[in-house]
Amino acid sequence: MFRKEIKVLDCTIRDGGLINKWDFSDDFVKAVLVALAKSGIDYMEIGYKASRKIISPDGLGKWRFCDEDDIRKVCEGVDLNGMKLSAMVDIGRVEADEIIPADKSVFDMVRVASYVKDIDKAIELVKRFHDHGYETTINIMAVSRALSVDLEEALKQLAESEVPTVYVVDSNGALYSEQIDYMVKKYQKYLPGKTIGIHAHNNQQLAYANTIESIIHGANMLDATVYGIGRGAGNCPLELLLGFLKNPKFRLRPVIELIEKEFIRLREKIEWGYIIPYAITGILDEHPRSAMELRDSAQKDEFTKFFDSFQTELII
Amino acid sequence: MFRKEIKVLDCTIRDGGLINKWDFSDDFVKAVLVALAKSGIDYMEIGYKASRKIISPDGLGKWRFCDEDDIRKVCEGVDLNGMKLSAMVDIGRVEADEIIPADKSVFDMVRVASYVKDIDKAIELVKRFHDHGYETTINIMAVSRALSVDLEEALKQLAESEVPTVYVVDSNGALYSEQIDYMVKKYQKYLPGKTIGIHAHNNQQLAYANTIESIIHGANMLDATVYGIGRGAGNCPLELLLGFLKNPKFRLRPVIELIEKEFIRLREKIEWGYIIPYAITGILDEHPRSAMELRDSAQKDEFTKFFDSFQTELII
Repeated sequence: MFRKEIKVLDCTIRDGGLINKWDFSDDFVKAVLVALAKSGIDYMEIGYKASRKIISPDGLGKWRFCDEDDIRKVCEGVDLNGMKLSAMVDIGRVEADEIIPADKSVFDMVRVASYVKDIDKAIELVKRFHDHGYETTINIMAVSRALSVDLEEALKQLAESEVPTVYVVDSNGALYSEQIDYMVKKYQKYLPGKTIGIHAHNNQQLAYANTIESIIHGANMLDATVYGIGRGAGNCPLELLLGFLKNPKFRLRPVIELIEKEFIRLREKIEWGYIIPYAITGILDEHPRSAMELRDSAQKDEFTKFFDSFQTELII
Repeated sequence: MFRKEIKVLDCTIRDGGLINKWDFSDDFVKAVLVALAKSGIDYMEIGYKASRKIISPDGLGKWRFCDEDDIRKVCEGVDLNGMKLSAMVDIGRVEADEIIPADKSVFDMVRVASYVKDIDKAIELVKRFHDHGYETTINIMAVSRALSVDLEEALKQLAESEVPTVYVVDSNGALYSEQIDYMVKKYQKYLPGKTIGIHAHNNQQLAYANTIESIIHGANMLDATVYGIGRGAGNCPLELLLGFLKNPKFRLRPVIELIEKEFIRLREKIEWGYIIPYAITGILDEHPRSAMELRDSAQKDEFTKFFDSFQTELII
């Protein structure tokens, strides 16, 4: 599949950081940065932007805050090969006076993650970053659980906003191909002229397949992570996506080498991927939170009891 | 997705046996049999039928031969709940005089696996089993590598044969959704009135997604295995497929319980699933043989060297 508009955004450190509280060493992040730049990836999302006045840094790695100096240090001496840098922001976790103009920042893009219900706040936050000169996106989380009427209302508001790119985010890893198709077509209808993005989760081993499905129907901004790292079942594996995209600007080899050198060991220390409790939450369109709690407990392999816990009494 | 014609065939023991030389205990096979019957699965493929005169049984478990008495023993006292039993045969590995009539056999179905080039032999073999009263299928392996002209010729011959069900088999785990779509439509065009089956491999995490894709386009006979067990990257995970199919005859819980009780331990002893060398052979549409050899060697994690080994000199 070749379409010149297609851009790939790697969120290995940002989404992977959700598993280990962003406890990645500078060397590790640099190794990822170098490999992604060599592979021709368009954007690397290094972490979250947040104010230390609002979130205590205790126990959290530096990629949770993405201070300019920390990021410059890791980029030092690296040929970025045109790769842009991105950070994600949460609503209510940045201070207006801490935002510096884009031309003074190491970052090119800021992405705002939002549930449908918070879309007004997201639009306001995007405006601030847009006015400071950043590229922006809004990532609408958990669309599998959004009511059509609410989602359509949000999309109408986004159509009027500054944001050029809006993401379909399958937070629960619950969407099947026909639903992805439906979502991408809906976004296109309500957001003429804007780019559609896809961020898929792998609870049902569908993150990569759903990313392909969204490409077929017109999505041009694709999230992926190295070896599929990410919270719970993880994300669309970058190595598979590069194998699919036929654009000659992409190279697969640096990612394979990175997995060999860094990710095999990492996977022995922290857990992500296809594991039955995540499959269960995906099938049931539930947030993976309960599955993560199970995997952190002594009952981690008690799948049947976990499955039964969803067969609760009816709420009427 | 509900369509009453859809049948699910579990080949956990048959395809899983390719990793451990069918070294499953009677208790293990019985546990699988009981869980599948409870789950409402239509067919369980217990192993291969083969003549001990042709294949030496040394080092191979009994499920490589599927003697009637062995199978009867494991079925003893189990309520099959309407589940039929299946065995696979390889061309040239059964003796005509060893085939007993279906009404005297514990098996209901025999499946013949064949490359396109061997289709005449497959048709002849199917005829023998058909004449003995068995249900039959022909599973055309490695369709991703078959030339269209050869595949179409084979399908024309199959249209004239006794076989009621013909499978699309993605042996290399190389097919993308649009190619699955193309294959299923081609089979339907050339095989009017016959059932189309799908047997997908998981090298690119697409086995389940491609199974769904084939269902959407009309496939009604679906192969899957518990926890996706199978040679190399394995197969379409049964638990995910049951989560997708809305037919009330299927139950997910017995499969979840089976995974908890048997498959977590098994996975610690034998390897299958998404592993980079299998992803590489899938992306390149190569047989996974080389990846299996790598994983059996001391260089099992040398992914980059393995990737480079395919960048060989041009053959002109």
